[in-house]
Amino acid sequence: MGMAEGFSIGLDLGGTRLKAAAVSHAGAVLDFEVRDSGARHGPRAPLLAMVEAVRTLSERAGARPRAIGVGVPGAVDPATGILRGTTPHLPHWRDFPVRAELEALFGRGLAVDNDANAAAWAEHRAGAARGTRASLTVCVGTGLGGGYVAQGRLLRGAWGGAGELGHLPLGSGALACRCGVPNCVEPEASGSGIVRLADARGLAATDARDVFAAAAAGEPRAAAVVAHVAERLGAAIATATTLLNPELVVLAGGLAEAGETFVEGVRRSYLRHVLPANSARLERAAFGERAGAVGAALLGWERVGEG
Amino acid sequence: MGMAEGFSIGLDLGGTRLKAAAVSHAGAVLDFEVRDSGARHGPRAPLLAMVEAVRTLSERAGARPRAIGVGVPGAVDPATGILRGTTPHLPHWRDFPVRAELEALFGRGLAVDNDANAAAWAEHRAGAARGTRASLTVCVGTGLGGGYVAQGRLLRGAWGGAGELGHLPLGSGALACRCGVPNCVEPEASGSGIVRLADARGLAATDARDVFAAAAAGEPRAAAVVAHVAERLGAAIATATTLLNPELVVLAGGLAEAGETFVEGVRRSYLRHVLPANSARLERAAFGERAGAVGAALLGWERVGEG
Repeated sequence: MGMAEGFSIGLDLGGTRLKAAAVSHAGAVLDFEVRDSGARHGPRAPLLAMVEAVRTLSERAGARPRAIGVGVPGAVDPATGILRGTTPHLPHWRDFPVRAELEALFGRGLAVDNDANAAAWAEHRAGAARGTRASLTVCVGTGLGGGYVAQGRLLRGAWGGAGELGHLPLGSGALACRCGVPNCVEPEASGSGIVRLADARGLAATDARDVFAAAAAGEPRAAAVVAHVAERLGAAIATATTLLNPELVVLAGGLAEAGETFVEGVRRSYLRHVLPANSARLERAAFGERAGAVGAALLGWERVGEG
Repeated sequence: MGMAEGFSIGLDLGGTRLKAAAVSHAGAVLDFEVRDSGARHGPRAPLLAMVEAVRTLSERAGARPRAIGVGVPGAVDPATGILRGTTPHLPHWRDFPVRAELEALFGRGLAVDNDANAAAWAEHRAGAARGTRASLTVCVGTGLGGGYVAQGRLLRGAWGGAGELGHLPLGSGALACRCGVPNCVEPEASGSGIVRLADARGLAATDARDVFAAAAAGEPRAAAVVAHVAERLGAAIATATTLLNPELVVLAGGLAEAGETFVEGVRRSYLRHVLPANSARLERAAFGERAGAVGAALLGWERVGEG
């Protein structure tokens, strides 16, 4: 497949990395790159990184994109395109009118949505959840978030805040979250949580991968941390499943690739905690860590119609 | 307002009672009655009760209804109109094709949905949630259920099971639920739970009202039970709010009328457990215990178009 039919560029903005994908209308990934997001360097740096990414992919394709879509790590009000409040990954973007800023910068209309919503849209349109009546995509990386699609529509809620799987009061209270919710589950059901839990047990780890490696090598404290995180993550996904009745749960993000032992632990806990009548299949994402960028591109296509 | 413009009949089928309302297209309640649902007396008895209710309201109006809608205490697959699995309130209706049976019986098309969905639809269309972008209606009576409307649509999920607020793993484990979920919250966040918790503390109560009355009279064990149920109910509603981002939470069902002390306890716990960015207003239902019947009637109107 080439670029002749046209492509949309999807941008997945994170706290450290900006992923960019050129995607066909059918969801084929034609090009992909990763660069520094600049999110820590003031409000303009991520905008410039996005302009550079679009320029790079356009030059490599020898054509302008037919559409652009952007996923950001926060709640985007679908009515206004404003990033609501603040998000730890974008410290300089409090109540930032992200859609208006990007439309001015690119001189065209584009789609802006939450990054987990974008990932859910990718899996719904062209990935593991294609053809399902309702699907929940759970993104487990540094943090924990989710996106839900039913009857072909993303669930966004009143101001784009739907799908906040991470901040449910399902933790043991062992670690506090800056969100303020008592027993918030995110510190016990995410990559950053794995590092903090390992640290609390006296294990030196800079990355969740270190802890997974130690657990795989038989280190008992690391194994206990991994088992605990799988258990709490399963309970959080089960809670969302009981409320949302998806036909399929898609596991995306870095931790979805942490190995079969971990995913099996998540699945066991999930099956124990979900209301049996609502129990859904649980599969890994088809687009892996690219889901956010691919989904943003596909939301871009939506914005311009049946491109 | 009279019957001249036509009316829809809504039926809210419960384990013991059948509520029926004649409702205008705008949501005005023109007539209302309650009778025995017959749900314990075999599969045909509730059908006959519904036929009798429709006949009674039609005779009193001197006209046939323009539409009929039915709410039932279980998950109704929107694609097939089949009540999925079994529900404790309708022991004889396992996998019952409720829509087809009723359409054959009445000789016309009609709407069938979950009772909490019907209540949510009433509050969205003509009650406390009118004009909101997204609302969650929580029904707390004998059990605990919920319905959610966003962008003018009910959330039903893959097979009508969405909104199962009652069976989240948020309880203390003090009481088991027949659903099988460990730490299911329903036995600690519902009317039947209040009675069981009071019983476990040596208080004789046949009804949640007895426990509320004892608590109001200063009985310390009753007060502790009421406070515990308010606390767990608030946590369950907060969890659903963090996931669904409603603009408004509507409290419906018998326990919504249990007095300001209880509702204030629910609100305090809710505000403590909800993700602050997603915190929504919490109000009582406009239609009270009639919400299910009124919403069923309004879903009937939807079925026949802009009657």
